[in-house]
Amino acid sequence: MCPVEGHRFWKDSGKLADGREIIYFDESPALHRAAVPDRRELARLPAEPRPEQEGQFPPAGLRWDALAGEWVIIAAQRQDRTFLPPTEECPLCPSRDGRLTEIPADDYDVVVFENRFPSLRGATEDQRAPAEAVPGGPLETAGVPGRPPTGRCEVVCFTSDHNASFAGLSPHRVRTVLEAWADRTTVLRSIRGIEQVYCFENRGEEIGVTLTHPHGQIYGYPFVTPRTAHTLSQARAYATSRRGNLFDDIVAGERASGTRVVSANEHWTAFVPAAARWPYEVLIFPARRVPSLPDLGEEARQAFCDLYLDVLRRMDALFGMPLPYIAAWHQAPAGDDFAHREFAAHLQVFSIRRAPGKLKYLAGSESGMGVWINDVLPEDAARRLREAR
Amino acid sequence: MCPVEGHRFWKDSGKLADGREIIYFDESPALHRAAVPDRRELARLPAEPRPEQEGQFPPAGLRWDALAGEWVIIAAQRQDRTFLPPTEECPLCPSRDGRLTEIPADDYDVVVFENRFPSLRGATEDQRAPAEAVPGGPLETAGVPGRPPTGRCEVVCFTSDHNASFAGLSPHRVRTVLEAWADRTTVLRSIRGIEQVYCFENRGEEIGVTLTHPHGQIYGYPFVTPRTAHTLSQARAYATSRRGNLFDDIVAGERASGTRVVSANEHWTAFVPAAARWPYEVLIFPARRVPSLPDLGEEARQAFCDLYLDVLRRMDALFGMPLPYIAAWHQAPAGDDFAHREFAAHLQVFSIRRAPGKLKYLAGSESGMGVWINDVLPEDAARRLREAR
Repeated sequence: MCPVEGHRFWKDSGKLADGREIIYFDESPALHRAAVPDRRELARLPAEPRPEQEGQFPPAGLRWDALAGEWVIIAAQRQDRTFLPPTEECPLCPSRDGRLTEIPADDYDVVVFENRFPSLRGATEDQRAPAEAVPGGPLETAGVPGRPPTGRCEVVCFTSDHNASFAGLSPHRVRTVLEAWADRTTVLRSIRGIEQVYCFENRGEEIGVTLTHPHGQIYGYPFVTPRTAHTLSQARAYATSRRGNLFDDIVAGERASGTRVVSANEHWTAFVPAAARWPYEVLIFPARRVPSLPDLGEEARQAFCDLYLDVLRRMDALFGMPLPYIAAWHQAPAGDDFAHREFAAHLQVFSIRRAPGKLKYLAGSESGMGVWINDVLPEDAARRLREAR
Repeated sequence: MCPVEGHRFWKDSGKLADGREIIYFDESPALHRAAVPDRRELARLPAEPRPEQEGQFPPAGLRWDALAGEWVIIAAQRQDRTFLPPTEECPLCPSRDGRLTEIPADDYDVVVFENRFPSLRGATEDQRAPAEAVPGGPLETAGVPGRPPTGRCEVVCFTSDHNASFAGLSPHRVRTVLEAWADRTTVLRSIRGIEQVYCFENRGEEIGVTLTHPHGQIYGYPFVTPRTAHTLSQARAYATSRRGNLFDDIVAGERASGTRVVSANEHWTAFVPAAARWPYEVLIFPARRVPSLPDLGEEARQAFCDLYLDVLRRMDALFGMPLPYIAAWHQAPAGDDFAHREFAAHLQVFSIRRAPGKLKYLAGSESGMGVWINDVLPEDAARRLREAR
């Protein structure tokens, strides 16, 4: 159990050999881990390549999809990123026995550092980056500008134990991870150019995870993401027509019905959404609505740890094997007054596994038209998760 | 080459043993294939299950995702559908040598029939279905109605040759397939309750294809799909602010620049979009804009066959192996005046393969936030496709 009186952690930050920032979140004081120098010889990341000619697209960056009305990130320099290295070459383990990894210290509790193969970059605390559009080349006449890929991509290691999983963490450690998420949300959203902070975990080779060491990621996007923009648009329309809060009414409806509730305590409700898109999908909302993680109160933070572990362990118990999943924290964008008043931060956990030998693929309907087809009845998914132990 | 004077085909329709419709598109006259009875004993599809209690969600159907503002199809009855059967049990081969398949005839050119495991159903030419919402149960207070899964799912077999692929068809056969797509578009959009007709092909086990016999699908959706709604919204905004047509300007820009053009002739342009989401993605637009397939003129229909085959063969040549792909026809919704005037029907073909041993996965950014990250520079993708033969 988490200590009732609140959670203590010690934060310290340093620099890696190529100038990237590393931040330790320790559960004990005075470890001075950030003071350990990174002894690797790493070339500094090259500056973002520029277009060869005036008016051309930059080779990488943000591009405007004029047909969808959405930004797409072109990150061509990432093709060579580390891909499923053997355990003894894991870059997320601590540096020990002469082997130097991304984490210079010989141990850590929770550690965050800038991704070496980022799809967004350039937004740093000391180097504020402009977010304005640059001319887009041949398609400028069609309203298709390009932008530099301003933003930030961080990696969060949940434990130094290579063979652990999030579901196997102690509640105390989950709380430290939650504190790291909240801290990074506060820091990143204060950087000019970053409009939305997204904390998430990809777990499982089935969804393309290239490093098995338990870790998640944090993106600072230089725009409001399509998913969040659509949700805000729905919440605005609901506030206007029903004079209520969409999130509150959904959570109250699920608690009252109970059919799709998987796990709940005084401070949180975990339920399968009525219109679930994925075979197994759970939304986790705090009872007291807050726009983002830093706004969670002490009691809600405490109560989150056991509840989330309960949900993850049920997911792993479903098929008696580690379930591939994506865990996605939905938070309010930084500079949106309506969102700050009305958005409800929540965690969405979902899996593409629909049966022991079967995955859910996104094929023509989902990838072509944006229409999801779910083969598992949400009420059945909730019942199976309630029964899985 | 297709015959210059226009394409002749013979259409004939019959019923399968369980009442589903089957339509033959033959390249020779007087084959009377539809008159061959289906000798299987198939139970009629059960009626759509109804909720056990008043006010509950129906066990399957359309559900409104109130957070995204989109319909999701719940199709729980499909979990047991045929999954990668051995060749000698393929249900899409003709019925021969005493083995009875979905196609009663002993041969066919192109054949369309209603899917035995449909995610949308009930919209038929003789049984017009209502499309209005039904009360949604516990979440009705949160504006989350359910609807019956009214619509139609059809299968299109491109050839009776089990081991062929679309890229290996003759131009003449491609033309017959195009005529079948256009015919089904005309027929399905005239059915009350169907708002958008979608012709597509999923190809490759990597994207979850469960039958390897060359075939595609046609969906009649009872709503305008999210992708099409977003595109129409962008086209409307463009028409208002620039007083031009978004599609025309994009195609003109690509033809003028040429950087991303993969293949072109007088009537069609195939190019990688500037903000491509997928490692290899090609959009194919006719030179003369039409809202949907039935509006294509004779010359455009003729010119499509060779161009599309050229694009598909380049895609298969990229990595020297059959490329998994989704081919998606974007068409104007049925009852939208603006779309009828301004939408440009186009074919989008894209692959999740980014290298011989690597697939593009939709992970946290794409599936959680709707932000696509593409590791392949669109200009490089276009160059490689131009060079692939």
